[in-house]
Amino acid sequence: MKNSTRGNVDAFIVMDVMEAARAAEAEGRHIIHMEVGQPSTPAPASARAALADAMESDALGYTVALGLPALREGVAKLYKDWYNLDLNPNRVVITPGSSGAFILAFTALFNAGDKVGLGEPGYPSYRQILKALDLIPVGLSTKPENRLQPVPADIPDGLAGLITASPANPSGTMLDHAALEGLIDTCRAKNTSFIADEIYHGLQYDGRAISALEVSDDIYVINSFSKYFSMTGWRVGWMVVPEDHIRTIERLAQNMFICPPHASQIAALAALDARDELDANLTTYRTNRQLMLDELPKAGFDKIAPPDGAFYIYADVSEHTDDSRAFASEILEKADVAVTPGMDFDPVRGHQTLRFSYARSTEDIREGLERLKRFMARR
Amino acid sequence: MKNSTRGNVDAFIVMDVMEAARAAEAEGRHIIHMEVGQPSTPAPASARAALADAMESDALGYTVALGLPALREGVAKLYKDWYNLDLNPNRVVITPGSSGAFILAFTALFNAGDKVGLGEPGYPSYRQILKALDLIPVGLSTKPENRLQPVPADIPDGLAGLITASPANPSGTMLDHAALEGLIDTCRAKNTSFIADEIYHGLQYDGRAISALEVSDDIYVINSFSKYFSMTGWRVGWMVVPEDHIRTIERLAQNMFICPPHASQIAALAALDARDELDANLTTYRTNRQLMLDELPKAGFDKIAPPDGAFYIYADVSEHTDDSRAFASEILEKADVAVTPGMDFDPVRGHQTLRFSYARSTEDIREGLERLKRFMARR
Repeated sequence: MKNSTRGNVDAFIVMDVMEAARAAEAEGRHIIHMEVGQPSTPAPASARAALADAMESDALGYTVALGLPALREGVAKLYKDWYNLDLNPNRVVITPGSSGAFILAFTALFNAGDKVGLGEPGYPSYRQILKALDLIPVGLSTKPENRLQPVPADIPDGLAGLITASPANPSGTMLDHAALEGLIDTCRAKNTSFIADEIYHGLQYDGRAISALEVSDDIYVINSFSKYFSMTGWRVGWMVVPEDHIRTIERLAQNMFICPPHASQIAALAALDARDELDANLTTYRTNRQLMLDELPKAGFDKIAPPDGAFYIYADVSEHTDDSRAFASEILEKADVAVTPGMDFDPVRGHQTLRFSYARSTEDIREGLERLKRFMARR
Repeated sequence: MKNSTRGNVDAFIVMDVMEAARAAEAEGRHIIHMEVGQPSTPAPASARAALADAMESDALGYTVALGLPALREGVAKLYKDWYNLDLNPNRVVITPGSSGAFILAFTALFNAGDKVGLGEPGYPSYRQILKALDLIPVGLSTKPENRLQPVPADIPDGLAGLITASPANPSGTMLDHAALEGLIDTCRAKNTSFIADEIYHGLQYDGRAISALEVSDDIYVINSFSKYFSMTGWRVGWMVVPEDHIRTIERLAQNMFICPPHASQIAALAALDARDELDANLTTYRTNRQLMLDELPKAGFDKIAPPDGAFYIYADVSEHTDDSRAFASEILEKADVAVTPGMDFDPVRGHQTLRFSYARSTEDIREGLERLKRFMARR
């Protein structure tokens, strides 16, 4: 049997870094993990307790395809709480992670051969999922002066869709209300469907993140319990869609996923109320971020994108290397710190960038920064 | 924003039945559920206990994309146990349910516009997932004398792939070694990729189910923890692929799903050893099946497919109706029994068929059969 053309997607380069870090640890070395894209904290204690209870009283069979009604209502309430928006819970679709939401959105909106734009640097799987669905990803090279976010002038004609992310991965930069409005208006004028990835909402440090739903209802917004709610491995996310798209999404979800994991939905419902524990996590990220901003420049990493949110620092390292992959290997080898080379995020310019994650404990971040400073001083 | 053409998939008709049954229950009526496609039993006790423990000691973050290595090894051992096959665990891919396996298989094997065959009657989501991925489903109308399974003569030229199911949903019929060999050989000769859905393996009542892997390694086999292991809502399944396809599937899985739900993988690993509890479930199905075979004909439902496995009886009801949907509504209304009309499974002939599930408790099945007999006697 032979493989399809569209199935031939790229691997993650960060996986090679993670494997190299694992191998180093297997040799007995102590590695600081600044390559990871997930919290080291578990799901909130109340979420785990709710599931432990449910496992004793409920068979946890299939749920309805769009998710537990109480969870859809809980997410709608979050929009009141975070953005002062009155959101119809029927527009909230619970999904198997934001990954499942992307598959639903792309199949609901685009036909094979359609072109879909995405800002670069950006989350690498946008490009690969599009490719796997026989869509054509169009990378929009963003500018540092635009906070590495796309602006209306970057949007070509002929796109069936545009994906934005705020706070973005890897840059951490956010789109404010005016920036979102400019992009959404331009997309509407060009008949380009607008998809906003808001998976890092809740993790911001100066002011609040603006939801694209504050600008328009005629868009798709994708979010997840993975980051702020600290539930990556549970694979539960959500999507908000226009009212006249609910039925199409429901049919696709019934057939493509049947339902999101029931156990994860139970845990997610309880996590919505675990604000104290989640805010404590946020305090750790805030401390870590300040350490990064204070110390990374002392190691020579001072050309960084404005880190408004998420838990990443994206650095232009062009004065140190033209081969970020080799540079990341060298840092792992000599400094015992794992970092991510930029090529996953930006195939064009990523050979001169690195992503540093500060999702781990403050103790780890402090030690990692000391190692980076010592290594760069010797280099 | 407008929807894509491919996103316009069909709804499940069974969902309407389930909603009507729910509404009847809300009115205070007592309904027997013969429409459901899932066990009423929970995951095995040891699986739930393993997860309860893991939640206290592990953050349950992302796993690697192909699944926990111990779970892949455990599934490989199942093939030794069930089929006396030595299976390389690297060929086992843990997936977000069999649903996730279908998405991975179809994107890895087929390009937009490819034609993929499937036997009818069959699981309706094959057709809809194919459509959502811009593939062209080709229904092969199977014959009662072939146990409602496709035979080599049914396979046209020009198919990129063929999906078979044994035991099948809705019919419960199985493919024996010779039947599988005939289909696989024909597919090989026609350059048609072969996908075997074995999700109901473990639930068979006369002799054992034959895996397509006993015939060939150059195929995809899809299975799940949903049915025999009684874990539908957990969304964890697996797929066995040829060695030279592992890397392609890994890259697709990294990007499209990141990983299957971690909590569900922990539970599934423990479920592999919960044979006593699972065999007790099987004993219940066996009892229920015999009740159905004894009593359904007394209600006038005597034209049934050979129910080798799964937990369904598929009946030709052409002597009672030309509108199975109206007939199912009438049965719900007057007999308080929910059954599934055949159109979900066979768009051509399903208006004269019904599917009866016997996945619930024996007490429920016994009561449902009494109600059906009384109703049909009056009709």
